[in-house]
Amino acid sequence: MNDRARRPGPTVRTRVREFGAGGERAREDRLATEEPLEIRLAWPGSAAQRVWVTMRTPGHDFELAAGFLTHEGIATPSSVHGIAYCTDVDLAPEQEFNVVTVTLTGPADIGHRHTGLSAGSSACGVCGKDSVTAVLDLVDAARAPRWAGPLPSPDVVRGLPEALRAGQTVFSRTGGVHAAGLFTADGERLVVREDVGRHNAVDKVTGARVLAGQSPAEACLVVSGRAGFELAQKAIAAGIGSMVAVGAPSSLAVALAREAGLAVFGFTREERTVRYT
Amino acid sequence: MNDRARRPGPTVRTRVREFGAGGERAREDRLATEEPLEIRLAWPGSAAQRVWVTMRTPGHDFELAAGFLTHEGIATPSSVHGIAYCTDVDLAPEQEFNVVTVTLTGPADIGHRHTGLSAGSSACGVCGKDSVTAVLDLVDAARAPRWAGPLPSPDVVRGLPEALRAGQTVFSRTGGVHAAGLFTADGERLVVREDVGRHNAVDKVTGARVLAGQSPAEACLVVSGRAGFELAQKAIAAGIGSMVAVGAPSSLAVALAREAGLAVFGFTREERTVRYT
Repeated sequence: MNDRARRPGPTVRTRVREFGAGGERAREDRLATEEPLEIRLAWPGSAAQRVWVTMRTPGHDFELAAGFLTHEGIATPSSVHGIAYCTDVDLAPEQEFNVVTVTLTGPADIGHRHTGLSAGSSACGVCGKDSVTAVLDLVDAARAPRWAGPLPSPDVVRGLPEALRAGQTVFSRTGGVHAAGLFTADGERLVVREDVGRHNAVDKVTGARVLAGQSPAEACLVVSGRAGFELAQKAIAAGIGSMVAVGAPSSLAVALAREAGLAVFGFTREERTVRYT
Repeated sequence: MNDRARRPGPTVRTRVREFGAGGERAREDRLATEEPLEIRLAWPGSAAQRVWVTMRTPGHDFELAAGFLTHEGIATPSSVHGIAYCTDVDLAPEQEFNVVTVTLTGPADIGHRHTGLSAGSSACGVCGKDSVTAVLDLVDAARAPRWAGPLPSPDVVRGLPEALRAGQTVFSRTGGVHAAGLFTADGERLVVREDVGRHNAVDKVTGARVLAGQSPAEACLVVSGRAGFELAQKAIAAGIGSMVAVGAPSSLAVALAREAGLAVFGFTREERTVRYT
C-alpha cells in the first residue's frame, strides 16, 4: 500500500520528433500528466458514494477534493473529518491513487446540489430557469463568508500574473498546465497550484486553505487563462473578493460576478489590466 | 417563435475600465458570450430525454449537438433525422435558444455510454478499470470509419495554426475563445468553429460535417489550445487521422493517441512543430 513508485507524478517523460524549418531531430520531452480522479463522499453511518470524476494532473489530490466540495457548498473547513486514497480490494493497482474518499463529520445533502452542472453533467437542466439565478441559488447554499477586506489596487493587479508564474513549477517543464493562486490585497502569494484543468487548479488552491483549517475567502484569485462562468462560480462560492485573469472573461462570468459583487479583471499583464465589474 | 432578437449572439458589448501605467480610461469592450445549452435526444416512439448540458458560445448549436452525439458514439451522419430548438411551454423566453432536441431515425442505447465522463460527470467511474482501455471501448463503440488517406507533412502542419486563425471571426473581437478546424492533408481549410469551450469547438466542426451528410473523418483536426485527453477522444471517435495543437498535449492524450493510431503534433507554430506519436 505504501509503494510510492506507483504514484503518478505531475510530469512524464516521452520521446518526440521536432520538425523545424531546418530539418528534424529526435529528443526527449516532458508532458503534463493527466489521469482521472474519482471523488467519493462519506460520513458516519453512511457508505462512501461517488460524487464526481475529473481528469486532473496528479498532486495535491486531497486539496482538489476538499476544494471541489467547498465550491459545491458540500464541505466547510470545519466539516472535513478526513481524506484518504481508496483501498478497494477490486481496485486495479494503477488506479490506487486515482480514487479519494472525503469523510465529513456529519451528513451532507448532495441530492439537490447542482454538482457538476458547470462541468457539463446531465444531472441538472437549465430548462425554465434563468441560469444566473440558478447559480446564485447554489452560491447562497454555500453560505461562504464573503471577503470584507481591501482589494488589490490596479497597480498590484498588473503584477499578479508574473507573481503567479513565479510560483509555478510544472509549467516551466511542460508548458502545458494552467495555474491558479490566492493573493493578499498587497500582492503577497499565499498558495499556487497547477493542473491540466483550469477548474482543478482553482479547486486545489481553495482546498489548500480548507485543509489548513483556514477560510478560502481571500482578497484575490489569480488564474493563468480565461475567466469563464465556472471559475467565477467557484470564486464566489469560496467567498473570494476579486478574480484576476491573464485572458478574457466570458459574458456569463461577468454577469454572475456583477450580481455577486466579485471584482473581475481580464487581459492582465505588466502594462495594463481591464476591469469588467 | 421567430423573434430573432431573443437569440443570443457570439459576443456581447460591455463597459469596462482599463488601467495602464499611465492612468485609467473607460471604454466599451466585447465579451465572448457564454450560455448553457441543453441537448435532448428523441427517436420515434420515445419522449425526448436530456443527455447533456454544456456552457457554450451561442452559434452553430445544431452542429454542436450533432458533433457531441457523434463523438459519444450515439449519432452517425445517417441516423440524425432532425434537430430543433425546444418549444416547451414552461421554458423561460430567454432560454428558448438554449435547449436543442436531436431526433434520431431509430432508438439509441445511451444507458451504458460514457456520456460526460470527460466533462466530469458523476455517471461513470474509473474504479478498477484502466482509463485508457475504458476510453478505447468507447471509441470502438463509435464504429467511426478511420481516415485512411494521407496526413499533412510537417511543413504543412507548421502552417495550420495560422490557417486556423485566418478562419476565426469571434477571436479578433474578444480574444476570448478557442477554435477548432478540419483541414485536408494539403492544408485546405474545410470548416472552422469557435467557442469559449475547447471541447465545444471540436464538437461543432464534427457536427458541421455530419449535418452536411459527410463523414467527420478527415486528415487533420487543428485546435487553438492544448491537446488534452478529451479532445484526443473526440478526434478518435470521429475517425480523424491527425491532431495539431498550438499548445501542449497531455500524457493521457498521447497515450490514447498512440493506442488508437492518431498522430499528435503539439507546440505548433511557423518555426516548428513537435510530433508525439
